[in-house]
Amino acid sequence: MLLLCTSLSTLVGSCVGFEPKTNMRAITNPSSLIHHHPPSVACAVLRSLRHRLPLFAPSFVKVKAQSASTSYAELDDTRAGRSGSLASPPSQLDVTKKIDVNPPKGTRDFPPEEMRLRNWLFQNFREVSQLYGFEEVDFPVLESEALFIRKAGEEIRDQLYCFEDRGNRRVALRPELTPSLARLVIQKGKSVALPLKWFAIGQCWRYERMTRGRRREHYQWNMDIIGVPNVTAEAELISSIVTFFKRIGITASDVGFKVSSRKVLQEVLRRYSIPENLFGRVCVIIDKLEKIPIDDIKKELRNAELSEEAVEELLQILSVKSLTKLEEKLGASVEALADLKQLFSLAEKYGYSDWIQFDASIVRGLAYYTGIVFEGFDREGKLRAICGGGRYDRLLSTFGGDDIPACGFGFGDAVIIELLKERGLLPEVSPQIENIVCSLDQDLQGAASLVAARLRDKGQSVDLVLESKPLKWVFKRAAKINAQRLILVGMSEWEKGMVGVKILSSGEQYEIKVDDLE
Amino acid sequence: MLLLCTSLSTLVGSCVGFEPKTNMRAITNPSSLIHHHPPSVACAVLRSLRHRLPLFAPSFVKVKAQSASTSYAELDDTRAGRSGSLASPPSQLDVTKKIDVNPPKGTRDFPPEEMRLRNWLFQNFREVSQLYGFEEVDFPVLESEALFIRKAGEEIRDQLYCFEDRGNRRVALRPELTPSLARLVIQKGKSVALPLKWFAIGQCWRYERMTRGRRREHYQWNMDIIGVPNVTAEAELISSIVTFFKRIGITASDVGFKVSSRKVLQEVLRRYSIPENLFGRVCVIIDKLEKIPIDDIKKELRNAELSEEAVEELLQILSVKSLTKLEEKLGASVEALADLKQLFSLAEKYGYSDWIQFDASIVRGLAYYTGIVFEGFDREGKLRAICGGGRYDRLLSTFGGDDIPACGFGFGDAVIIELLKERGLLPEVSPQIENIVCSLDQDLQGAASLVAARLRDKGQSVDLVLESKPLKWVFKRAAKINAQRLILVGMSEWEKGMVGVKILSSGEQYEIKVDDLE
Repeated sequence: MLLLCTSLSTLVGSCVGFEPKTNMRAITNPSSLIHHHPPSVACAVLRSLRHRLPLFAPSFVKVKAQSASTSYAELDDTRAGRSGSLASPPSQLDVTKKIDVNPPKGTRDFPPEEMRLRNWLFQNFREVSQLYGFEEVDFPVLESEALFIRKAGEEIRDQLYCFEDRGNRRVALRPELTPSLARLVIQKGKSVALPLKWFAIGQCWRYERMTRGRRREHYQWNMDIIGVPNVTAEAELISSIVTFFKRIGITASDVGFKVSSRKVLQEVLRRYSIPENLFGRVCVIIDKLEKIPIDDIKKELRNAELSEEAVEELLQILSVKSLTKLEEKLGASVEALADLKQLFSLAEKYGYSDWIQFDASIVRGLAYYTGIVFEGFDREGKLRAICGGGRYDRLLSTFGGDDIPACGFGFGDAVIIELLKERGLLPEVSPQIENIVCSLDQDLQGAASLVAARLRDKGQSVDLVLESKPLKWVFKRAAKINAQRLILVGMSEWEKGMVGVKILSSGEQYEIKVDDLE
Repeated sequence: MLLLCTSLSTLVGSCVGFEPKTNMRAITNPSSLIHHHPPSVACAVLRSLRHRLPLFAPSFVKVKAQSASTSYAELDDTRAGRSGSLASPPSQLDVTKKIDVNPPKGTRDFPPEEMRLRNWLFQNFREVSQLYGFEEVDFPVLESEALFIRKAGEEIRDQLYCFEDRGNRRVALRPELTPSLARLVIQKGKSVALPLKWFAIGQCWRYERMTRGRRREHYQWNMDIIGVPNVTAEAELISSIVTFFKRIGITASDVGFKVSSRKVLQEVLRRYSIPENLFGRVCVIIDKLEKIPIDDIKKELRNAELSEEAVEELLQILSVKSLTKLEEKLGASVEALADLKQLFSLAEKYGYSDWIQFDASIVRGLAYYTGIVFEGFDREGKLRAICGGGRYDRLLSTFGGDDIPACGFGFGDAVIIELLKERGLLPEVSPQIENIVCSLDQDLQGAASLVAARLRDKGQSVDLVLESKPLKWVFKRAAKINAQRLILVGMSEWEKGMVGVKILSSGEQYEIKVDDLE
């Protein structure tokens, strides 16, 4: 229960990462309780909740299981935790009891085997981004909370991992990368030449119930194009994701992209004279289609002051799955249609037509999208959205900057790993160390260091055995790290300036002068 | 004042990053005021401080300068900030005023030029680690606070960036990586074969005064060897740092390593019958030598209940700069001496003798070191320690695990960049995109996409021009991204299945069939 899943490679079924640039199903989210009450009330609510809900149980289970004495965690709870006090460190305490050896609830360690997989994934993100001429950027994982506070009830905003720092500033662990990117674009102002093509791979956080094994952090790959108003930008972004999929062995029969435009919705709202400032809110409601019952959707839409008729018309439009049908409904002149037609035409040139399909029900869960929106989905329908993105031409002005047309996508590290595992496509990522160097005599440890140094000078990776170990141990170690060669430094050879070499794949053995080692 | 330095490449002089695995000079650190008082007092102290010290001024300076109306930041301060309430998000507010476009105080954005430099640095960290057969690992940036609470007044602990989360748990942004590594080692238990050779590159945080431009986050490269009791491990670690320095153009005349052993101090304390539990505290005091006046050092040592005589003897020993002299003082049989002699002997075999020197005053600022300690220093004496590390054989038992011999080092991303800049060794890290593809006619945008897709299929990176732009603009863009080739898609060529190519370095121009593009 503590942490259902710490492993990238054991994700399937149990552990579902949170989705990039989208809303998630948080029907019963206790954290949402605290948003609309003054802090003292929120504090009391949390205090009462922690006695009822498993998610608020102390994570120091190991300590509790081991002894009945007061653990550090409990001490801490009594001292400052429940008083809702300023975040300051406790006075010095003696911590000699066993700490919780797990990472904080909902977060992951990356031991070597997980890290190799993560590096493999990130390397593919990077190489594809560079193939498309994008430059890498990064931002602080801790940002001012103000950057993420938006109107509309987005799940991403409700699950903000926020704090008050020791300087009484409201800060948050970023739930997504786009607001930081927008901030940096405003900061750079006219000093950068448009268009910007930027990518980032960063950890994002949310504070959420842990009941379904969903995590509180994930890594997200983002690609954004700033300064291009045309759907050529969206077409380029989708192309890059397709390239990524192909590289890792995923085909158009595994995944597809559902594509729509928020301008479709906008057109419907315009026809029913619904005020423009309701747009974001309506989108966030619509995004819950297929996640909550249709009657709840209708109710929420009526609460947003849409007429019965507008709600029905909206839902009808959202069921449309072809551009021809959409044209019948809305007429040929609407902007949405021109954009979508151009996108599908470009897709043909790029060669990814078979990956994309129009689906009016796609709106995505972030309030800031304004045009084309898309999401990558698993054709077997088992997994949540793999990635998602769209155009956000007006995000910069919500931060007080001048608007610049922009679009981008987010692609998390969780669902894709599930998909690869489902399809048997997870790569073998073994450690790869070229040599293992070992002295056969304790007095030759220095000699072994010398040999290792020579090899490394020549660019060869070396695992140097740092203690006297039996040969059996050395062979086991060599196998574990996939070493290609074993270099043995023995007294009689060393006196001749030689070492013994064993090629581990073939078993071939020979002696060689140290200087001749390559 | 807001952020003295956001730029890796403009660090010199103004911005000094925080030092890995060490204490820093925090003589007047307001945050230390709050450690030894109950939260309410701490809160009041902070509240009064924020009206006096510039470091507590709101960071939303831009908003204040622009208008006299209440900014979001001010609203927030009034609402929850000063009441020291539970960290919960504010209710929905309208944020249309200009946000602060800077990253939070003391943190950095990485726009492309900074990110290229960071990637270059990290790539060197990675390649050297792999040359030495180390495997990469990572841990959550947010950890349970308990992991970092230790006895002894380490600066790193006093500057803990800690919070209370929405589940009332005490959490902290990690100030260093070693405790997380120790936690993971305990968690893995007997499932991993020793020795472990692990490296990590991670962001670390501290909450500190910003007066001298010191930052609140930095990235740190760590290499650790778990399971080797012999100084062969320390010798290997120092060798890897030397290899790193050489790779990036730093020589033994630029930097050196000061090496000592905490067993020297331990021996002195033993002789004066000073209880072992004072050891860590004494080390932390000694680490301030050359940072605060000697009389303050003496006073702190006497406060730690060392006799006048012990203090004098200690300070005398600490001034020793040669092993011969040390042997004279302590006798040949002390363990420290044997370790150090072996280390210097191994250094000779590795070939880095000219990089290291014995200096008894080196103790490092972290409480957990038990044996050899070392730090990399700039021979011109201008910069703070570049890196540092040592043996920590008893850290695991402070977390309730079984002890395993261990040693490691931390190497920050700030001082090294300063040093490289001082020596004129900062690399040129320009963007490198092989092709720029541009259509000469709006109707050929799809054709240009097709050409870009073909090139990318062949592994060529392409910046595709996504809008109709004049050729002059295209050439400027090509120069900016260092493109090697310009591919022009014009109507007359396209009709023949051809495109125009211009080699940008030579000016050479020709037409080629699209399928023949390599």
